[in-house]
Amino acid sequence: LPVYLGTEAKPVDSRIVLCKYNVEDFQKTQLSHWQDIEDYLPKDSENVWINVCGLNAPQLIQQIGTFFQIHPLVIEDLSNTYQRSKLENYERYLFFASRILYIDEDHQIINSPLFFILQNKVLITFHETNYPSFANIYKRLQNPESRMRSSSVDYLAYALLDEMVDEYFSIVENLSNSVEVLEEKLLSDNSPKTLHEISDLKKQLISLKRTVWPMRQLIHALTVIEVPMIQASTKLYFRDIYDHTIQIVEALETFRELLSSMLDIYLSGVNNHTNEVMKVLTMIATVFMPLAFITGIYGMNFHYMPELQLKYAYPGVWILSLLIMIGMFFYFKKKKWL
Amino acid sequence: LPVYLGTEAKPVDSRIVLCKYNVEDFQKTQLSHWQDIEDYLPKDSENVWINVCGLNAPQLIQQIGTFFQIHPLVIEDLSNTYQRSKLENYERYLFFASRILYIDEDHQIINSPLFFILQNKVLITFHETNYPSFANIYKRLQNPESRMRSSSVDYLAYALLDEMVDEYFSIVENLSNSVEVLEEKLLSDNSPKTLHEISDLKKQLISLKRTVWPMRQLIHALTVIEVPMIQASTKLYFRDIYDHTIQIVEALETFRELLSSMLDIYLSGVNNHTNEVMKVLTMIATVFMPLAFITGIYGMNFHYMPELQLKYAYPGVWILSLLIMIGMFFYFKKKKWL
Amino acid sequence: LPVYLGTEAKPVDSRIVLCKYNVEDFQKTQLSHWQDIEDYLPKDSENVWINVCGLNAPQLIQQIGTFFQIHPLVIEDLSNTYQRSKLENYERYLFFASRILYIDEDHQIINSPLFFILQNKVLITFHETNYPSFANIYKRLQNPESRMRSSSVDYLAYALLDEMVDEYFSIVENLSNSVEVLEEKLLSDNSPKTLHEISDLKKQLISLKRTVWPMRQLIHALTVIEVPMIQASTKLYFRDIYDHTIQIVEALETFRELLSSMLDIYLSGVNNHTNEVMKVLTMIATVFMPLAFITGIYGMNFHYMPELQLKYAYPGVWILSLLIMIGMFFYFKKKKWL
Amino acid sequence: LPVYLGTEAKPVDSRIVLCKYNVEDFQKTQLSHWQDIEDYLPKDSENVWINVCGLNAPQLIQQIGTFFQIHPLVIEDLSNTYQRSKLENYERYLFFASRILYIDEDHQIINSPLFFILQNKVLITFHETNYPSFANIYKRLQNPESRMRSSSVDYLAYALLDEMVDEYFSIVENLSNSVEVLEEKLLSDNSPKTLHEISDLKKQLISLKRTVWPMRQLIHALTVIEVPMIQASTKLYFRDIYDHTIQIVEALETFRELLSSMLDIYLSGVNNHTNEVMKVLTMIATVFMPLAFITGIYGMNFHYMPELQLKYAYPGVWILSLLIMIGMFFYFKKKKWL
Amino acid sequence: LPVYLGTEAKPVDSRIVLCKYNVEDFQKTQLSHWQDIEDYLPKDSENVWINVCGLNAPQLIQQIGTFFQIHPLVIEDLSNTYQRSKLENYERYLFFASRILYIDEDHQIINSPLFFILQNKVLITFHETNYPSFANIYKRLQNPESRMRSSSVDYLAYALLDEMVDEYFSIVENLSNSVEVLEEKLLSDNSPKTLHEISDLKKQLISLKRTVWPMRQLIHALTVIEVPMIQASTKLYFRDIYDHTIQIVEALETFRELLSSMLDIYLSGVNNHTNEVMKVLTMIATVFMPLAFITGIYGMNFHYMPELQLKYAYPGVWILSLLIMIGMFFYFKKKKWL
Repeated sequence: LPVYLGTEAKPVDSRIVLCKYNVEDFQKTQLSHWQDIEDYLPKDSENVWINVCGLNAPQLIQQIGTFFQIHPLVIEDLSNTYQRSKLENYERYLFFASRILYIDEDHQIINSPLFFILQNKVLITFHETNYPSFANIYKRLQNPESRMRSSSVDYLAYALLDEMVDEYFSIVENLSNSVEVLEEKLLSDNSPKTLHEISDLKKQLISLKRTVWPMRQLIHALTVIEVPMIQASTKLYFRDIYDHTIQIVEALETFRELLSSMLDIYLSGVNNHTNEVMKVLTMIATVFMPLAFITGIYGMNFHYMPELQLKYAYPGVWILSLLIMIGMFFYFKKKKWL
Repeated sequence: LPVYLGTEAKPVDSRIVLCKYNVEDFQKTQLSHWQDIEDYLPKDSENVWINVCGLNAPQLIQQIGTFFQIHPLVIEDLSNTYQRSKLENYERYLFFASRILYIDEDHQIINSPLFFILQNKVLITFHETNYPSFANIYKRLQNPESRMRSSSVDYLAYALLDEMVDEYFSIVENLSNSVEVLEEKLLSDNSPKTLHEISDLKKQLISLKRTVWPMRQLIHALTVIEVPMIQASTKLYFRDIYDHTIQIVEALETFRELLSSMLDIYLSGVNNHTNEVMKVLTMIATVFMPLAFITGIYGMNFHYMPELQLKYAYPGVWILSLLIMIGMFFYFKKKKWL
Repeated sequence: LPVYLGTEAKPVDSRIVLCKYNVEDFQKTQLSHWQDIEDYLPKDSENVWINVCGLNAPQLIQQIGTFFQIHPLVIEDLSNTYQRSKLENYERYLFFASRILYIDEDHQIINSPLFFILQNKVLITFHETNYPSFANIYKRLQNPESRMRSSSVDYLAYALLDEMVDEYFSIVENLSNSVEVLEEKLLSDNSPKTLHEISDLKKQLISLKRTVWPMRQLIHALTVIEVPMIQASTKLYFRDIYDHTIQIVEALETFRELLSSMLDIYLSGVNNHTNEVMKVLTMIATVFMPLAFITGIYGMNFHYMPELQLKYAYPGVWILSLLIMIGMFFYFKKKKWL
Repeated sequence: LPVYLGTEAKPVDSRIVLCKYNVEDFQKTQLSHWQDIEDYLPKDSENVWINVCGLNAPQLIQQIGTFFQIHPLVIEDLSNTYQRSKLENYERYLFFASRILYIDEDHQIINSPLFFILQNKVLITFHETNYPSFANIYKRLQNPESRMRSSSVDYLAYALLDEMVDEYFSIVENLSNSVEVLEEKLLSDNSPKTLHEISDLKKQLISLKRTVWPMRQLIHALTVIEVPMIQASTKLYFRDIYDHTIQIVEALETFRELLSSMLDIYLSGVNNHTNEVMKVLTMIATVFMPLAFITGIYGMNFHYMPELQLKYAYPGVWILSLLIMIGMFFYFKKKKWL
Repeated sequence: LPVYLGTEAKPVDSRIVLCKYNVEDFQKTQLSHWQDIEDYLPKDSENVWINVCGLNAPQLIQQIGTFFQIHPLVIEDLSNTYQRSKLENYERYLFFASRILYIDEDHQIINSPLFFILQNKVLITFHETNYPSFANIYKRLQNPESRMRSSSVDYLAYALLDEMVDEYFSIVENLSNSVEVLEEKLLSDNSPKTLHEISDLKKQLISLKRTVWPMRQLIHALTVIEVPMIQASTKLYFRDIYDHTIQIVEALETFRELLSSMLDIYLSGVNNHTNEVMKVLTMIATVFMPLAFITGIYGMNFHYMPELQLKYAYPGVWILSLLIMIGMFFYFKKKKWL
């Protein structure tokens, strides 16, 4: 039995949804027993999509896998929610792992795998979460005008990947907003909190990159692979998503450069702040230390200090003090410290 | 219908300009209905350039696309003003997206797409803005001596790309001036504003790089692709623009290194400034703290302080103070703090 | 004689364990003399695994090597405990060096080589330590249901490498925990000790990377090499471990980026700390230096100082002092220093 | 007409020098009219080198270009003094642009293009400045023993490139000296001027790299290209210069690493300096602040201060002050601040 | 005549040592005249190694080169002690330059070239210094059991390269020790001297890398080249040294990362030191400035200061001072400054 490996998303109860369609017909059933699959296998021009929800059901996965004569290594991978995107060609079928990224209703980023087993007329998908984009696909499939209905299951696989990459774009936009907000904040706030926010965004970016890069390789592999399961006309569509993944990769790269730029600004902001504080200290010391010396002089108790008898000596000290203050003020002005 | 995706430039009303030309003849018409295209299709040695202005007209784009049997994926791309440069070979025609960069009359950098659909005798271009360089092309086409007139539409596509890359050079020169101005400023000004200017230039550079790199790949692809729409003699010309894009890429790389160098100078300038401020503070403290100690000593109220009775004690304190000041002055001189 | 080259693990006495198996039978013997190998050479469908423990036995290695006609360069490598992972194809046999990584009972990371000489029906392995995973392999071999029993020795080699890569994952998880602990600590502690911990993790990472990268290359080579000793069906399995090594490499890369991020936070934390200290100093000086000036003024001994006679002058000085303190307090509040 | 594009070197009047040579004969003429070229075209075993000086002569370049049936794109390049090194194969002739680097009599680095049009028996070179190395070439051509005389014009092209790369080496040596001088200076001088010198060297390095890299690619292309104009035996010579360009590239890379190392030393020097200044300040404050407190105490005017009456109180204060000073001295000694 | 280009090692007098050997015989002679080579040319199964010591003998090199019909470019290279490692195939012979690295009796690192001209039965080597490893080779050649005796000169070339790479390992170990010593030192010492040591090691590393990288490429080229002078069986041996050079390259890469880590620690150590100094200063100021204010207050000369008459005012000031000191002590304790 394959071993279920943790999950980042909340696991759901296992459920099998089967769609059987061709240009004329569309039929969607939720199977109560996996054995019912046998009754729905495609005939003539029919295509079948078996969507298995819930990776935490080793027995079910094992049984479906055995029924379709899937290689044991693939069955093992199907229970690994940490599986990175990859493409494996097993002659009779293509196995590819991809990753779903979306923001759920709790505003959490869900990062979970979606597995495809693509045969000539049957597509089996395995996943873990209530991925909201499936609803769109079901709806599009119901529409008899849709290109999906007149195409084979490879185009269905494209449609699924396309929805996924569209979700990636909204994650990237989300990140883009966070970067912009932080950039504004940086102009006014040099607190360590800002640094931690930069660092958090960087971590998000690293994790996103780790998801997107293998995905990009997978889609590139799909545009060049020569197998009967994927038609030449569908490859044009894969090429289109590939173009989108490149845009995402470039956007992430831009964010990386922006964050590194922001870190420089932050660090230099801290240094500038030190500079400002130092200037205040130095100005205070420069003004009051000479003054303290003068008052110290006339606080001495020598018997013979002629100035002490002078009538205008005391106001003289005040005037001298004011002159020193004013002089320093202009000196600092000249040095651009003020 | 394709979905129009935002724009960075101001969208204009859609308009179709059609040029029909061969060595002997040149005819330029603004079409009122797209259906008129049919009357202008090229015969014999004729070439036709259909220039569609205004990407925010899904219906028009859809209709022209259908008329020329363009792939739906291409039609979708034609409404995306964020489309990066790319080349796609659809056997019957080449589709390539490029990006216009120019400074408009409001001194804004406009970054907007220009799409080419290159058939054997017909070139269709789609764009969004009143790109000023089109005027040059129209003018050169009117000249019967021009190489454009005696060549097919692939040379026209070259001429358009060449004008675009020339505009890139003026953007790069612009950036080069900003870098130089900032470099001068850096010698005298260490304020955080300078840092933000460095950072702004860096952002401009990143965005420019993101535009130029795919463009470079596109033009390289045009120099090596083997299709009937592009003649071998025209490829020499594409090679020439490719050379120019490499120069632009190298210039951007140089700016990147210069900006990183400038950041180092800026940061070290801030540190040096701190040093200067610290030195002033330390000198002041070093001079006046011992003096304050001396005046403090003779300000004490002990009954038995023999110096207090001495006649020359008071001037002695002044002389001692002066000696300390002079001594410190030479000490700082020696330490190169002054 | 080959020269034994040091070891990082504790060397053990040399020992030869021989397993002979096919689908029906399994036999495990510890040989007292290496010459006994001859009696156990495989017949018909039999496979033989000779597991030589203890690299510090030049004579034994030399004799076994000569018996199997192993190339002198290979024999030399077999005594080098620092040997990096590599694959060498000697037509009659494959020689590959891999590295065992595991945490022993003393919580030390053991990094030691495991050598494979893979012939058609004989696998000879050489190693140094009491690698705990061997026990698992012996146990799985005893199980007649196991795929190992029905496969040739190439699948046994896969099983060994698979166990090794699984051990790598636990080392990586270990490191991951250390990184997380350190990340938490960083929020509260800026002492130089933290820096040394970051630096230590970085060193561990570098050394891990040096072990894993050649291992990844080795396993990749095993998935593509075309030799009779490795069957096509087994290559699928190697491809599976290759996938795992890529995950490990990516994890290490992520740790590298996290550590570099942590270093930035640490350094900026030190600077922020300086800032805090400076602010305290500046506030103290800014408050008490003007006050010291005022008390200095009225400590002077001039004969004519009218204020000295005033009754409310003394409480006035106290009130002035309080006003200065309160004023500075609000000034610092406004400057966000408090 | 081609458009002349600026120049970094002082432009000179246009001038055509023609050399016609074979093993037996050598003839060097300065042509007054470009039309005279026709009289000197090579016959039998003769080779002709036409050296056109002065790129700021569009008409002349156009006429010579048309006479030799050179492609209009090449003619355009010939007037561009910013042209980077490149190789273009036009079947009937090779066009390559290279860059001359030398230090002129005013100790300025001159960076200017040298264009080659290499035909079977004719080499045409175009350049801008009075490049001193041409004299060497003329002299070597006059020598009937020289390999140049017995070889075709491809060897002459090699000889020219070889001289150019030799000049590169002297530029690199120059830079190497500057780096060494700066390195020494760094040990004693942390002024911002040093930073600007590091930054200037870095800029020189970047500009040098931009010149050398394309040159290296050009020479590599010459070693692998298969054209009738370049004989196999001459390629060995190009391989030799290629080796030299690699050495230059490596030297530049080494300088880059040294400069980055020097920047680290500089920045850390500034920080150390701050440290030193801070220590002086802190020592002064630590010694004199407690002393000021003591003198302050005995400067108070309380009626009941028993110490004031003591005979030895005053010398006691002096002794206490000395003890504090000595104590602090040993404390700082222990902390290694002195 | 080739031009001798400087040297880093002390040049020695030129000397030719000739070894002629096959399985049965070994003969070693020091030639007094290079012309004697002719008498020793190999017959039948014989191999000849001509070891020319002293590159500063242009005439000798020219004559030997001409005798063996070596290409003039090779002869030129033979006098260049700065020549980087490279391999050139001249059909009749292989020319390769390698670099010797060893520590001489004065503890200086000697970096000097060793040139090989490998013909079918003759190996000519040229070098500059009394390279100690030659003695080993002579000794091994004398041993009739040695594989060298039964192999052709390609195996001899391998043996020489193998000795050289072994010497590289001791240099690397040397460097490794220096890195470790410096790492320990870093924990206790933040003086600028440490920085200069880091920087010196970095420079050594850069220079080592510049030597090892081309060497690695050379040896790789030897493992893949298809020439009659190198037998397939010898290539296995070259593959073995190639493996060693990769280990050296990896070690250097590790040192580079360690040194960069050490630089971070050093710089942060300097910053931490500043922090420590600042804390002392701030604590002193924070304690004594309020105390000075208090003593200042009671040093004023107002006529109406009621506290002055109080009997316990003076001890009260002392008690207040102590309370302030103790309070500050606990405040700093809480802030973790102590």
